[in-house]
Amino acid sequence: MKIGIIGGGQLAQMLAWSAVPLGIKTLVLDPNPDCPASLAAEIIVGDYDDLNALQALAKRVDVITYEFENVPTAALKQIKSKKIFPSLEILEVAQERLAEKQCFVDLKIPTTEFYAVNSEEDLIQAAKKFGYPFVVKTRRMGYDGKGQAIIRAENEVKVVFQQLGGQPLMAENWVEFQMEVSQIAVRDQAGKIYYYPLTLNVHRDGILRQSHAPYDSSLKIAQLAVNYTKKLMEKFNYVGVMAIEFFVHQGGLIANEMAPRVHNSGHWTIEGAVTSQFQNHMRAIAGLPLGCTDDIQQTVMINLIGNHPPINELMQFPDVYCHFYGKTPAKGRKLGHLTLVKASPAIFKKTVKELFELLGEDY
Amino acid sequence: MKIGIIGGGQLAQMLAWSAVPLGIKTLVLDPNPDCPASLAAEIIVGDYDDLNALQALAKRVDVITYEFENVPTAALKQIKSKKIFPSLEILEVAQERLAEKQCFVDLKIPTTEFYAVNSEEDLIQAAKKFGYPFVVKTRRMGYDGKGQAIIRAENEVKVVFQQLGGQPLMAENWVEFQMEVSQIAVRDQAGKIYYYPLTLNVHRDGILRQSHAPYDSSLKIAQLAVNYTKKLMEKFNYVGVMAIEFFVHQGGLIANEMAPRVHNSGHWTIEGAVTSQFQNHMRAIAGLPLGCTDDIQQTVMINLIGNHPPINELMQFPDVYCHFYGKTPAKGRKLGHLTLVKASPAIFKKTVKELFELLGEDY
Repeated sequence: MKIGIIGGGQLAQMLAWSAVPLGIKTLVLDPNPDCPASLAAEIIVGDYDDLNALQALAKRVDVITYEFENVPTAALKQIKSKKIFPSLEILEVAQERLAEKQCFVDLKIPTTEFYAVNSEEDLIQAAKKFGYPFVVKTRRMGYDGKGQAIIRAENEVKVVFQQLGGQPLMAENWVEFQMEVSQIAVRDQAGKIYYYPLTLNVHRDGILRQSHAPYDSSLKIAQLAVNYTKKLMEKFNYVGVMAIEFFVHQGGLIANEMAPRVHNSGHWTIEGAVTSQFQNHMRAIAGLPLGCTDDIQQTVMINLIGNHPPINELMQFPDVYCHFYGKTPAKGRKLGHLTLVKASPAIFKKTVKELFELLGEDY
Repeated sequence: MKIGIIGGGQLAQMLAWSAVPLGIKTLVLDPNPDCPASLAAEIIVGDYDDLNALQALAKRVDVITYEFENVPTAALKQIKSKKIFPSLEILEVAQERLAEKQCFVDLKIPTTEFYAVNSEEDLIQAAKKFGYPFVVKTRRMGYDGKGQAIIRAENEVKVVFQQLGGQPLMAENWVEFQMEVSQIAVRDQAGKIYYYPLTLNVHRDGILRQSHAPYDSSLKIAQLAVNYTKKLMEKFNYVGVMAIEFFVHQGGLIANEMAPRVHNSGHWTIEGAVTSQFQNHMRAIAGLPLGCTDDIQQTVMINLIGNHPPINELMQFPDVYCHFYGKTPAKGRKLGHLTLVKASPAIFKKTVKELFELLGEDY
């Protein structure tokens, strides 16, 4: 069994890595032969929309998946010889924020109010509809807080339009949410779905900084997350891992966005769950039985962003699992993550404290 | 950081795999481009004693290690540009049973009585010395019960000599041991040693079938294992993971053999210890801090030998971690291993029972 992945970042690296114990070899399409996935997979060098490279990949694998939702679909549609999971149908919905929002609405999944923006005049109309503050996002290619802005007052409308305009935008109502959680789930080719426990996420500047899991939500919240995820997965006959980010608001959930892939807020599952999100994605697309998604211990996942922390000191914490992606440091770049695991509540608190002293106030 | 490994079997696969989260890329020298390690590492195709291939490997890595002790040392000695861990000095001792035994004797580590055999006459002398039964082994290239025989009566002497002779042999006294345990330990470049808990091993036909770990030995046994391992590691200024197999006999330990590498009886450390033997070997040779070797849960490791078990059923046991090496089935070949982990004593027993029902009486 061989699996192909489009995109060679850290998600592809962890997908390939998680499949090794199953005896599965992974081939990755990426323009950079030294991409993070090259540590655990064979790289086929080429752009994501290079049809020749895609066909070379398809020839050597049994099934294809992708590690990010901004994969160009035009070339992928030419690859008719191999199954692609998750389907291109949901990929196209997830690529375009307006379609994504409309999909939530169609499935009666609560989401923030939104308004299509194609001109400065539309943005002024959105301000009237929502009041200040409200959020503006590009409809495509946004991630990690890129391609979005908050408009706090009338005089910011023009500035933000100059900054983000020239492409289709979307305005969204501002929600004073209590916290953000994510539901990660996996669906196999026969339609069986396994759900991970909810994750509580902490963002800064639009980038995920920490995840705490399992998050001990109310039963109602947990059930809502499962119901909404089930609707989405069944609607698209989904195969693989999906993540949905929700705002917790007034005792209910508001869908923020979905990702048709493994997700940063699920990295804790490597140490914290019986089967990681990565291995379960590979199992699902390979047609193998899903693994148990129960949590086995309390975890805190901390993203390492921008600069490498003191690696030698970190590696000596017995309760801290280090994941370094092999990337060159750059501002805002995710270089790795740490997973703190809970030996006992007292040790856990002590480790968290010591760890944050070591990492400094940036974390 | 890049690490080179000589040999591309499952040990190399798991070594390469364990280094991925540290951001380390692994290159492996093996004559077979589709060897098990090819799932997790880049393969440089060549024989283990192909000097050109060895030099090509050395050029691209920071440090070199090996996954089996029967690596030819002559070519390796030509590679002066890179550090090789563990040292070739201990490799040469571990390759030759007589040198290995003599090393135990020199270090005052109890071992079975032995006798060098170069002729049928020597074998008759050994029989006189030890009485029946006694054991005969080739001095080189033995593993998994290959290259050894038990002589139970005088009339077997000639037969066994015809079978194994024509090369240097060694006879050993037969020990009615109580059980076999192994000590796995790791030493870093500054001389710090971490010891894993003892493992209890079950063999059949000379092949390891099961390991139970941690093995709750007497304090005396645990201390003896640590003392003997420390002597060996310090004598050779050892860097990396070492395994020593001991017989438990009359409340003490008798060293059977050592392996200057990660060891089958340490596979349980992937799920059962804070840091696996594989990652700790890579940390040690890379000059990184060692990881904690404490056990985190009770485990049983079961080797999958000869035929693939019912994989789909196995993958649905939540307490069973599957490791398939990607090898073609063959009689006596290690195709993978399972690690049962202990959720609770009751579940553990139930799982062991169900698992063995599924695997059949061969296990």
